[in-house]
Amino acid sequence: MTSGIVTLTTDFGLSDHYVGVMKGVILRFNPQARIVDLCHQVPAYDLLGAGFILAASYSYFAPGTVHLVVVDPGVGSPRRPIVVEAEPWLFVAPDNGVLEPVYRRCPHRVWALQPEIFALKPISNTFHGRDVFAPAAGLLSRGDPPERMAEPIEDFARLEIPSPREIGPGRREGQVLHVDSFGNLITNFQPENLPQRFLLTVGRVRTEALRSVYAQADPGEIFAIAGSSGFVEISIHQASAAEEAGVGAGAAVGLVDRDAVK
Amino acid sequence: MTSGIVTLTTDFGLSDHYVGVMKGVILRFNPQARIVDLCHQVPAYDLLGAGFILAASYSYFAPGTVHLVVVDPGVGSPRRPIVVEAEPWLFVAPDNGVLEPVYRRCPHRVWALQPEIFALKPISNTFHGRDVFAPAAGLLSRGDPPERMAEPIEDFARLEIPSPREIGPGRREGQVLHVDSFGNLITNFQPENLPQRFLLTVGRVRTEALRSVYAQADPGEIFAIAGSSGFVEISIHQASAAEEAGVGAGAAVGLVDRDAVK
Amino acid sequence: MTSGIVTLTTDFGLSDHYVGVMKGVILRFNPQARIVDLCHQVPAYDLLGAGFILAASYSYFAPGTVHLVVVDPGVGSPRRPIVVEAEPWLFVAPDNGVLEPVYRRCPHRVWALQPEIFALKPISNTFHGRDVFAPAAGLLSRGDPPERMAEPIEDFARLEIPSPREIGPGRREGQVLHVDSFGNLITNFQPENLPQRFLLTVGRVRTEALRSVYAQADPGEIFAIAGSSGFVEISIHQASAAEEAGVGAGAAVGLVDRDAVK
Repeated sequence: MTSGIVTLTTDFGLSDHYVGVMKGVILRFNPQARIVDLCHQVPAYDLLGAGFILAASYSYFAPGTVHLVVVDPGVGSPRRPIVVEAEPWLFVAPDNGVLEPVYRRCPHRVWALQPEIFALKPISNTFHGRDVFAPAAGLLSRGDPPERMAEPIEDFARLEIPSPREIGPGRREGQVLHVDSFGNLITNFQPENLPQRFLLTVGRVRTEALRSVYAQADPGEIFAIAGSSGFVEISIHQASAAEEAGVGAGAAVGLVDRDAVK
Repeated sequence: MTSGIVTLTTDFGLSDHYVGVMKGVILRFNPQARIVDLCHQVPAYDLLGAGFILAASYSYFAPGTVHLVVVDPGVGSPRRPIVVEAEPWLFVAPDNGVLEPVYRRCPHRVWALQPEIFALKPISNTFHGRDVFAPAAGLLSRGDPPERMAEPIEDFARLEIPSPREIGPGRREGQVLHVDSFGNLITNFQPENLPQRFLLTVGRVRTEALRSVYAQADPGEIFAIAGSSGFVEISIHQASAAEEAGVGAGAAVGLVDRDAVK
Repeated sequence: MTSGIVTLTTDFGLSDHYVGVMKGVILRFNPQARIVDLCHQVPAYDLLGAGFILAASYSYFAPGTVHLVVVDPGVGSPRRPIVVEAEPWLFVAPDNGVLEPVYRRCPHRVWALQPEIFALKPISNTFHGRDVFAPAAGLLSRGDPPERMAEPIEDFARLEIPSPREIGPGRREGQVLHVDSFGNLITNFQPENLPQRFLLTVGRVRTEALRSVYAQADPGEIFAIAGSSGFVEISIHQASAAEEAGVGAGAAVGLVDRDAVK
């Protein structure tokens, strides 16, 4: 039932030892674990950003994979460490809402981890990734059931995820969820909700063009495209739309339905 | 015959989920695969840069290793995904010339992958790394032969790789292939072709010195050295030659044979 | 006795092929090795920085793990490659003092590696990580004893590691060992040596507050905390203490005992 795979998503960056130490601990608890980095460059404390990375990734992994997320504005506070079963995957994270995208998409069961059962001792106040989360992920990845290390809960934390909203007849406002390293602006509009004739605006740029592949676009042209993460992206072929627009994650994106607005 | 190892070379960077997702897909097709990152910080769309990384690396891996390169200015365009056998290694890449260094050094057979046989469905228009290339690499790394997923072709794309050229009696012009993170300027001159007495010039610097080890050089001295990638490098001991010269990849490098030019 | 795990700590960065090639070589010598990156962004040639990363990490790995460190201001010079046994771990590194934190904490035996026995041929002058250190780590990680590839030595290199010193009655001066990616200033003071009432000063900031968890602090408050690496850290909750203080690794840190100094 376990795949033996543990994925890691953190805001630890790669210039410290934090990620490597977590891997060492996971391998102590499960010497057979295969560990895959999803991303360690989530902006510090950014729950929405970590949620985006996770949502775009988790379903591509084999059933039984353990997805560990350590982005944790409240490390050391009373927020609980949790494990979530959303079949066929398991998720381990702080109970701060970072798993909201999973709650929205999948039936799920949530447990509060009981660190006294399994954590490294003494548990530090500042590095639960090493002392609490890595041991839990290691044990789960070798097939230990959540029941052995956690208690079922119902009152887990939820997170507000911004959705596009109506701001007038035929007008909606969404936002940039993520800017990838190519400068593509990944919005929270879904391709199936794009009107036939539309105008998208973000920062300094605007476009009415929908392309199905990057290579179809003219050099320098701004266009919308159905991206690989399930969202509308605003892109420029072989250049950075984010730079051209002068915006980043969180920026407002306007969408006008040309057939509804004169 | 397979080593179970898959190496990855991309221009995806490490701030997105793209690399992690590809690993998840490789492991779905071959749960025993061992995945090694060669480099994910190839400059965006830089086929020569990716080719340099690959050429400096592939032969150090066990026979049967699958080297996957996803640097793809034309994702979604009609360019084909290919697999290349250059014994004892396999290579998977877009057919855009990025494998040119392999074609030049080794006997090779080329196949066009038939994604309808094995790709993730639906195939996205923007992330063939995940939907096409990762599945192919996974299957090949578990020992599936190219014949099972691809058709032999002869008309694969080639790439112009700049070589040093004569620009006058005893004068040649080459270029900087790559600047490494220490600031060493890796040129396309080969150590065996350096004249006995030479003058190398690049950007703001010039040198007539050849050192066999970094530590032999005086502090601040600019010197040439036979680098580990098989090329002449221009270096400064414990400082950045690239900064001192004020140049980067692609810069022209002059070479004068002192005994041929008065 | 071996865990099959090899950790890597280098100053090679991630924009080159150097780390990937070393992994390929390790896997040629031990196809079963599991390789874990500790850090590749140690500042170039920084022996103290590499030592800090290693000291904060090595003990979290399973007994029998091989810790390979390649930070090497003197590559190609006569400095020897060594292997150190500090039970239950093995360390491979250049003999330049980078393993000093291990010497200080653990009983240890040191051998000089004999590259002619096992190295890749020809040994390059510029990339011993690939040609000498990776083969040694691969062989050791599959269980080969140091005796098979090395000679015992006593005259290995030591490194001066700065410790806090008295600078007056009730006054000590330490320094910043490392700045992590969150901007926490990790000092070389140990929590058990902090006076009851203290004043810590570094760069533009000062604090008399000791917090046990980040989340306990007020927004914007500078405070001291017992960090996860065993040292006093100077931090700001959800902001960068390094930026606020305007300092980096190596900066002086003042500590005053309020009860000893009027």
